[in-house]
Amino acid sequence: MLQLGKRNWRIGLAIFFGKIIGTFVVIAAMMIIPGMIATPAHAADTYTAHETTFINTVNTIWTLVAAFLVFGMQAGFVMLEAGFARKKETVNVLMECIFDTCLCGILFWAIGYAFMFSTGNAFIGYHWFFLSGAPATYLATGIPILAHWIFQYAFADTCSTIVSGAMIGRTSFRGDILYSIGITGFIYPIIGHWAWGPDGFLALMGSKGNFLESLGQGFRDFAGSTVVHTIGGIASLAGAIVLGPRIGRVFRRDDKLKGGLPPAHNLTVAAVGAFILWFGWYGFNPGSTLSAMDMQGIGRIAANTTLAACAGGMVAMYFALWFGPTKGKFDVGFTVNGLLGGLVAITCPCYWVSPLGAILLGAIAGVVIFVGTNLLEYFRIDDPVGAVPVHGLCGIWGTISLGFFASGEYGATGPTGADNSAPVKGLFYGGGLDVLKAQFIGSFTITVATFVVAFAMMWIINKMPNPWKLRVEDHGEKAGLDIFEHGAAAYSEDEDEIDIQGLFEGGSVKNPLTA
Amino acid sequence: MLQLGKRNWRIGLAIFFGKIIGTFVVIAAMMIIPGMIATPAHAADTYTAHETTFINTVNTIWTLVAAFLVFGMQAGFVMLEAGFARKKETVNVLMECIFDTCLCGILFWAIGYAFMFSTGNAFIGYHWFFLSGAPATYLATGIPILAHWIFQYAFADTCSTIVSGAMIGRTSFRGDILYSIGITGFIYPIIGHWAWGPDGFLALMGSKGNFLESLGQGFRDFAGSTVVHTIGGIASLAGAIVLGPRIGRVFRRDDKLKGGLPPAHNLTVAAVGAFILWFGWYGFNPGSTLSAMDMQGIGRIAANTTLAACAGGMVAMYFALWFGPTKGKFDVGFTVNGLLGGLVAITCPCYWVSPLGAILLGAIAGVVIFVGTNLLEYFRIDDPVGAVPVHGLCGIWGTISLGFFASGEYGATGPTGADNSAPVKGLFYGGGLDVLKAQFIGSFTITVATFVVAFAMMWIINKMPNPWKLRVEDHGEKAGLDIFEHGAAAYSEDEDEIDIQGLFEGGSVKNPLTA
Amino acid sequence: MLQLGKRNWRIGLAIFFGKIIGTFVVIAAMMIIPGMIATPAHAADTYTAHETTFINTVNTIWTLVAAFLVFGMQAGFVMLEAGFARKKETVNVLMECIFDTCLCGILFWAIGYAFMFSTGNAFIGYHWFFLSGAPATYLATGIPILAHWIFQYAFADTCSTIVSGAMIGRTSFRGDILYSIGITGFIYPIIGHWAWGPDGFLALMGSKGNFLESLGQGFRDFAGSTVVHTIGGIASLAGAIVLGPRIGRVFRRDDKLKGGLPPAHNLTVAAVGAFILWFGWYGFNPGSTLSAMDMQGIGRIAANTTLAACAGGMVAMYFALWFGPTKGKFDVGFTVNGLLGGLVAITCPCYWVSPLGAILLGAIAGVVIFVGTNLLEYFRIDDPVGAVPVHGLCGIWGTISLGFFASGEYGATGPTGADNSAPVKGLFYGGGLDVLKAQFIGSFTITVATFVVAFAMMWIINKMPNPWKLRVEDHGEKAGLDIFEHGAAAYSEDEDEIDIQGLFEGGSVKNPLTA
Repeated sequence: MLQLGKRNWRIGLAIFFGKIIGTFVVIAAMMIIPGMIATPAHAADTYTAHETTFINTVNTIWTLVAAFLVFGMQAGFVMLEAGFARKKETVNVLMECIFDTCLCGILFWAIGYAFMFSTGNAFIGYHWFFLSGAPATYLATGIPILAHWIFQYAFADTCSTIVSGAMIGRTSFRGDILYSIGITGFIYPIIGHWAWGPDGFLALMGSKGNFLESLGQGFRDFAGSTVVHTIGGIASLAGAIVLGPRIGRVFRRDDKLKGGLPPAHNLTVAAVGAFILWFGWYGFNPGSTLSAMDMQGIGRIAANTTLAACAGGMVAMYFALWFGPTKGKFDVGFTVNGLLGGLVAITCPCYWVSPLGAILLGAIAGVVIFVGTNLLEYFRIDDPVGAVPVHGLCGIWGTISLGFFASGEYGATGPTGADNSAPVKGLFYGGGLDVLKAQFIGSFTITVATFVVAFAMMWIINKMPNPWKLRVEDHGEKAGLDIFEHGAAAYSEDEDEIDIQGLFEGGSVKNPLTA
Repeated sequence: MLQLGKRNWRIGLAIFFGKIIGTFVVIAAMMIIPGMIATPAHAADTYTAHETTFINTVNTIWTLVAAFLVFGMQAGFVMLEAGFARKKETVNVLMECIFDTCLCGILFWAIGYAFMFSTGNAFIGYHWFFLSGAPATYLATGIPILAHWIFQYAFADTCSTIVSGAMIGRTSFRGDILYSIGITGFIYPIIGHWAWGPDGFLALMGSKGNFLESLGQGFRDFAGSTVVHTIGGIASLAGAIVLGPRIGRVFRRDDKLKGGLPPAHNLTVAAVGAFILWFGWYGFNPGSTLSAMDMQGIGRIAANTTLAACAGGMVAMYFALWFGPTKGKFDVGFTVNGLLGGLVAITCPCYWVSPLGAILLGAIAGVVIFVGTNLLEYFRIDDPVGAVPVHGLCGIWGTISLGFFASGEYGATGPTGADNSAPVKGLFYGGGLDVLKAQFIGSFTITVATFVVAFAMMWIINKMPNPWKLRVEDHGEKAGLDIFEHGAAAYSEDEDEIDIQGLFEGGSVKNPLTA
Repeated sequence: MLQLGKRNWRIGLAIFFGKIIGTFVVIAAMMIIPGMIATPAHAADTYTAHETTFINTVNTIWTLVAAFLVFGMQAGFVMLEAGFARKKETVNVLMECIFDTCLCGILFWAIGYAFMFSTGNAFIGYHWFFLSGAPATYLATGIPILAHWIFQYAFADTCSTIVSGAMIGRTSFRGDILYSIGITGFIYPIIGHWAWGPDGFLALMGSKGNFLESLGQGFRDFAGSTVVHTIGGIASLAGAIVLGPRIGRVFRRDDKLKGGLPPAHNLTVAAVGAFILWFGWYGFNPGSTLSAMDMQGIGRIAANTTLAACAGGMVAMYFALWFGPTKGKFDVGFTVNGLLGGLVAITCPCYWVSPLGAILLGAIAGVVIFVGTNLLEYFRIDDPVGAVPVHGLCGIWGTISLGFFASGEYGATGPTGADNSAPVKGLFYGGGLDVLKAQFIGSFTITVATFVVAFAMMWIINKMPNPWKLRVEDHGEKAGLDIFEHGAAAYSEDEDEIDIQGLFEGGSVKNPLTA
């Protein structure tokens, strides 16, 4: 049916393989040769009142749909964390995610949004408590304040959920309530204000009359590698250190054979959770433009987000395959955490890097996951889901990576589109060290501040009497948090030994575990 | 690195704690002092043909994306219901959700949409059967009729799925088919016409020349606390009463120790289902504007929806913790149903209340869940997932709550934006009793009508011979609906006793259960 | 409370039942009487620069949101495939989906998008490798190239995932990597170029100076019944044939009693996966307009997609109920695959058919599922999830069905709206055989080409030495791919016999299965 000479095929083949190789050379050259020509500045346009309304409407639905996707990540988080946990701590994981999400809503309405996004000083916002006195739209975005609120609530809730990750299996539920109030009510929004508040000192860093004016570069964190993920991951680390490992947890350096994380109780649920998280990330990163008018920007972010995840997953899988501890096996845990690490890493630089940059920095995130996971084993830190390498370490790496990979083509995004008049250029593209320095300062400041404050908070909670003490009582941990704190088993019909029914009749029949 | 005097910190601290307390006082005052100044009426604008097209386009994609999210709730429902069920009735839950979704599509295309949304009389629409003769766009919305159809289909399907909730575990599949035809083909769309049809008597209530003209207020149900949730929850109650409880179900008043719902067979699945439902609710409520141009409206609805869920979940959790039956435990079932109750309750008033109002009415929904669940135990009604308290009771409460909490700031939404010229004001904001009366009349009428018609239908189906009888045969229920109706186990490899293979070879080998 | 005479009710009843019957007659007539009046051609409009920006923006967010939904289908696929699989091959299913998704991203960036969507010749595109040299927007769509890329990546990834379906349980992971490179890097994009590339010979077929000019009709595949689903399903078939059935798999013709697919290990997960796939399909089909300005088009596609799924699910359920092999039972597997078959079938014709057409062609897809599943048993082909009937056969049917059901009302979609000046009309609407012929030629060409190339590739991979051989080693298959390839069990705490820990310590302790 089809007419095609043999010779034509050979020529075609030669052409497209030539193209592939040639293109690769060009791209490699583009990486090395510095000083690409910047796109001309966005011309200042005048819009009619109707046009302005359209712009605001389109930007608002973009922001809202993104907010919904970010909220949907909660389903992913709860699956990932529950799936990687042991059976007897599963209900506890579920309840922490649910409760924290509820608590975060009330706190972020009452104080969190005010601390973080209202004006105040360089360190904290102090207007708009209970959203009272807030303007109709957020700053110059044209987005209704409540649309901006729900978008930022979904982010705060993400940070809140991350914190529980490394603390699974031995945290009392009342301790969880206490530290969650600290994280979502104070630590996340106040430290977040530094980077994302209208007058935060890291946000204004390098600008005239502000902190480190001489640097000439502000701290940039497009969608929150630092603000959401590093804060969450590092607070989780502080919690894990204060708590110590779960009873019976053996580390590889102590027993090469039996050491390592207990196997995930449900990998199906965990893997699906990873896909739902990836799905939700398409709200997280592209939505952070708060602007659909920046068409090229949102397309680029979506593509970069994808490619960083792909690279991170593949690299982590191969590192685990080649170098152990699961040598010779295609390991789910490393692969899933690798792609999540890629997603966390691209979250900060997603707007300013090219697809190739996204792949490279995502690949490095895969290595960070591999090294970080093994380091935690070495330091005898029990992190049941890998929250520290995924969110903490890859958050730091992603933030720093902008200093290397910013392509020098893209500047700022705004309600009416991109403004590339002052593009961000990293070291590898001939931009020198300034962006790198700014990113390092921002990441270092927030990492250290978070660790110190979160550690102090966790330490104090752990000095409280039972049942408020951070670490749950020993007999409760041994019986499993599910029975002890929630009076339920995740899969009740699989349990032979324990009669769930009547286990916790108020008063009349004492729960033997609490007796 | 950071320079900050001690004194500055203390002043800052004093300022923001002062702010918090001050704001709370102001808000409390706002609740009590009636008569807030109404925002001026929306000026009549003239749009060019192109602008009108843009408006319709943006409103259409908003409606479609919302429709998709509402459809996505089916995944949440099936998880929630299956997770809370016992293992042996799980496949039946899955199949009912799947089949009802399919059936609903065909029926809503053939007759449902016509009954509900076409013009006719005060009680029923009788045009557009099979969508034939329907106009290009739905009424004055500018939304293509098929986009409106799919949005409303997703709502109808939600109602349909809710009904199966309280009837889990003892309903024959053929009985399910029969009552589903009744619910989705007739009861939901016809009763729904009263409130949402273009000439429904509750929709036009209080207007000149219509039902109860003297009241001066129509019945309002923004996104369906009554139309979707009360109808679904009350029909479910009727079914549960006609069916009676599952074999072996013990109630707390009969045996305090062993009484109560059998434990959920898979809490992981149930909890994830709750998150997916919450996620889908962001289509349900904000999408019900059918207009993205009402930017402030959709942002407000999204925020209110969030906050009501948060409050409902927390309050129900603490009531169960403090007052039993799961005293001393942080119970998943109450918490999940609490947040769902908050979501159901905010569904009616979401457009007209403030965030604070949403929190308060959501919190009361949490109490409704607690009381309602215990009342069902008292009345010996077996509701395996809490469909009656969540959808029935919180639907009623949410509808009524508008009469208390409508803030007097917001009126109607339209294709080109909000029209707040005639804002709705409830009792707590100085609006008197009229809105409350209208809401009560609407909720009462629909609740009673649904119960009477659904009860009659269920009763008649239950008088039919097997296998069409509503209640499945005893030996089938004991063996489990999964094996009896579907010839399958949800988790086949966990079953030791039953050889699933060859259990239902047509003719050659009889299923011993049906023999 | 309500006043209504008995007589009025009877009249009302007569009116609406009359309406229903009457409408049905009218519709039936509309099906038979050919030559409906075409809507007038879309007037050429001139848009200002700002208006053009709005159009492009709205189209871009529509495309991106659709892309995200399509990506979300991965969660559905992984659930469906894992749920239908046996326990011991579950982790392998998860890992294949995850790895393929990562691999596809990198390959589609490097070569896939270039082969498929860049210009070249009738058989292959050969520009834009590594996206280098690609224009800012894709052709005349106005969509940023990276937004188009991610949308198409999500499609490519879908095809990639489909292929693994019929090959579950006996494919080595390294074999999976090899064939995935072939499918997503070469087969899918190159064959896809024929139908969707700017100069593909099937795309241009029937136009002046191109392939089969005399036919006067091009090959149409709106959203990929052929390009995505047939390619995926047929490649899966080739793989299944080359591999042969799993060890221990008994076919019905050999043992009527014990034959048939091993029961699904987790129907809950499988059913939820089906709902998530359906949800994601609302990106797949409506998003394929790449244009939100075509309001009527996207609404129609969404409704048609829904109705075809509903019809397919119901018909397959009843065929299985009435005719076996699960006679007398409401079978989950057939129902789920029926609705998925309906979705696959409507994917090609979704834009050009009426809701009634969608129902009819979806219903036939349900029959195709029933017949196809039984045919595979007859031919002793082991397809654990039904990938061949769902994607392969229903893909072919859906593509052909356009030739029958195209309603003659709708033409092309474009960035600024619908252009119905040259509507597509099928046989049943009086359009003659031309469309049918074009669809047959396109479907046949791609089906045969895919089968031949995929079979050759699978055959060659199966000739490689272990561990790269397509079929995994016997002892690995018997132990289960999960342990053998991934060193993990999906549900580790349910396993009594196998000590997962320390099973694969690199070197020090050999995995007994690989020894």
